[in-house]
Amino acid sequence: MNKISLLKKFELFNEHWTPKIIGELNGQQVKIAKVKGEFVWHDHANEDELFMVIKGRLIIHLRDQTIELNEGELYIVPKGVEHKPEAPEECWILLFEPQHIAHTGEVISDLTKVSEDWI
Amino acid sequence: MNKISLLKKFELFNEHWTPKIIGELNGQQVKIAKVKGEFVWHDHANEDELFMVIKGRLIIHLRDQTIELNEGELYIVPKGVEHKPEAPEECWILLFEPQHIAHTGEVISDLTKVSEDWI
Repeated sequence: MNKISLLKKFELFNEHWTPKIIGELNGQQVKIAKVKGEFVWHDHANEDELFMVIKGRLIIHLRDQTIELNEGELYIVPKGVEHKPEAPEECWILLFEPQHIAHTGEVISDLTKVSEDWI
Repeated sequence: MNKISLLKKFELFNEHWTPKIIGELNGQQVKIAKVKGEFVWHDHANEDELFMVIKGRLIIHLRDQTIELNEGELYIVPKGVEHKPEAPEECWILLFEPQHIAHTGEVISDLTKVSEDWI
């Protein structure tokens, strides 16, 4: 495989809330996404999910608190914990999560994508 | 859990080649390390390993090529592939790999640490 440049990968797409796979290891996937606005409340029954902010600011609403992530900060949402990501301005994030996870969990919304897109 | 700031975590230690665990998810661990100089040739028989450069420059020697990673670049070394990381100047890296992996693989050297250190 070749090395992966985050910046170059982010330059390849512009749509929001559509995670792209950039790497795979040990049954896990590394994804990137551009996000803006509010996502939907959801959880993942069996998977923890890592969010890392590469550029901008991400707010992760939890039922009992709100996490604000800036560039170089990360947060792991444990499995089963409801969360709603929000980005007031466009934000670039990196995700680590198991293969074949639906990004809206069991919740089907207009935003639901089956993320099997490599970039 | 609280959010994790990479920069703040890196400020907490100075030793080289001693990965510190900063997060855990789905049986995988997120680690950070400061590295400088040459590491030893080794492989991990059953685990893929992700290297991401947060600051500086990392050279990953493989038997058939050399990968040079700068800030914001990452590389996944597949399981079973021999590699030798090297950093001519101090470099800060993020690692993603399964729990309970020895960073020198089966090779025991003066640099071998069992990385169970959370930071």
